Amino acid sequence: MSMPPDQTVGVDLGRLVAIIAEELAAYRSQPAARCACHGWQMDCCPTRVQGVVDAGAARLGMHGAKGGGGLIAGLIDHTLLKADATAAEVEALCREAAENRFATVCVNPAWVALAARQLRGSGVGVCSVVGFPLGATTPDVKAYETRRAIVDGATEIDMVINVGALKSGDLRLVEQDIEGVAAACRACGATSKVIIEAALLTDDEKVTACTLAKAAGADFVKTSTGFGPGGATVADVALMRRVVGADMGVKAAGGVRDLEQMQAMVAAGATRVGASAGVRIVRESQGGAPAPNSPPPAARPGSY
Amino acid sequence: MSMPPDQTVGVDLGRLVAIIAEELAAYRSQPAARCACHGWQMDCCPTRVQGVVDAGAARLGMHGAKGGGGLIAGLIDHTLLKADATAAEVEALCREAAENRFATVCVNPAWVALAARQLRGSGVGVCSVVGFPLGATTPDVKAYETRRAIVDGATEIDMVINVGALKSGDLRLVEQDIEGVAAACRACGATSKVIIEAALLTDDEKVTACTLAKAAGADFVKTSTGFGPGGATVADVALMRRVVGADMGVKAAGGVRDLEQMQAMVAAGATRVGASAGVRIVRESQGGAPAPNSPPPAARPGSY
Repeated sequence: MSMPPDQTVGVDLGRLVAIIAEELAAYRSQPAARCACHGWQMDCCPTRVQGVVDAGAARLGMHGAKGGGGLIAGLIDHTLLKADATAAEVEALCREAAENRFATVCVNPAWVALAARQLRGSGVGVCSVVGFPLGATTPDVKAYETRRAIVDGATEIDMVINVGALKSGDLRLVEQDIEGVAAACRACGATSKVIIEAALLTDDEKVTACTLAKAAGADFVKTSTGFGPGGATVADVALMRRVVGADMGVKAAGGVRDLEQMQAMVAAGATRVGASAGVRIVRESQGGAPAPNSPPPAARPGSY
Repeated sequence: MSMPPDQTVGVDLGRLVAIIAEELAAYRSQPAARCACHGWQMDCCPTRVQGVVDAGAARLGMHGAKGGGGLIAGLIDHTLLKADATAAEVEALCREAAENRFATVCVNPAWVALAARQLRGSGVGVCSVVGFPLGATTPDVKAYETRRAIVDGATEIDMVINVGALKSGDLRLVEQDIEGVAAACRACGATSKVIIEAALLTDDEKVTACTLAKAAGADFVKTSTGFGPGGATVADVALMRRVVGADMGVKAAGGVRDLEQMQAMVAAGATRVGASAGVRIVRESQGGAPAPNSPPPAARPGSY
């Protein structure tokens, strides 16, 4: 792999990635195979969505192109992850997702079965979260949680890396942790996303985390949980895209609350956006006013 | 069970508890048995600690009475739950806990094995958290996470209730969720604590949550995760103590940062306190200045 020096982060990315890859090779006999396409949900396949971005999603104007949704809606994980979300709120989220043809609804594991029932036949997937939002559980717990969510109907899994292990230099544990979730997803045709919680990391750590996610065979890297000290930034999305290359997805999540912010994320390389303001964003993209009941800007952690 | 009306919360607590108990009885053939004492850690036994409170811990002046710790230290879970905690920080936490004879260190599941190694033979337990901090995973995942933490060396488990299920009126799910964790703890002689995340609940919901925790055979109820919109309050501790009676523990956690606050919690009925400022509190109780490296008041969620 050859990459030119990236002055924006003050490091030679290619060299850094090579060093991490060498370190991984010391304990891994061979790299994990990763699937090229995910049969369950063609609209969510990172390769396919990447094609949209390669074609210049920003230049497409981010307009809703068909029905109630279109290209922009198909990039959104319609998200509700607060601890006190109710069944009625999850059902409303699912109705909005079906009406707008979002890529998925993103809900906590306890709500996956309900969401899957609500969305059966709609073409909208169910995304859930694992080791969320701290990432500080063990690999086998994350793998178990992943399998359980998939059994309940999840088609996509957003897992949080072990941030503390990364900061302690235990790259092997970080990679094993990701691999356990990514392997469980591959076995079931589900999509795996790796949340690096960028706001807690240095740029070097962000590069390392993305490299490990790629080595572990994950499908996406994702910026943030929405519960950390900061959400997605354009700079982080651009850095993550640069590290993972064209064959992985990049999801921007946390604090994306209007069309302008979403366009900026996509222009920087995001192929998916996690947001609670999806309805508002789609309305904006269609030139209309925000829906009367669209959520206001988030005021508390996890509100996205 | 007969309890006088409690005007402080505007409801007849005894009647409310009776209603919840009747609802539970509709689907539970018999109440779960709960152990009277926990062999692993005598100092952490809720019955024993309750004895301290019954004797009037506030009247004892909360002074350190022996060695580096004493009564006050024995009530503290020395806590570090932030996502980016490192191995070095966990090791330092364990050293402080052993020096001060805290009840436990409270760490995320990924650090339990390390903490158990560090604390072997010290008399300090290892507390970990399950379904933390959102509580929105499924019962089997919480039970699995519990067993895994106990295998790694945890002697106490603080689990978060399914807040969303409670708010949706699914009391059966809330109770099953708690029961799975409590049963796994009982089977291994570990102590179970049930975090109700009081700041997200109405007073009626707090009463319901505590009643369900008691019915499920848990050992403690606990106010907060430290990651929610608010921490422990004296009013919540008093309400929780009133609902669970004398035969369960009550843990105050989140925002207890000095001796005065801790004394207020104990006077209200707390038998355990979760804090990152344990060293500072013990120094204060001994009449000394806070340790130079004692943590400043928390400035971000989860800092306790």
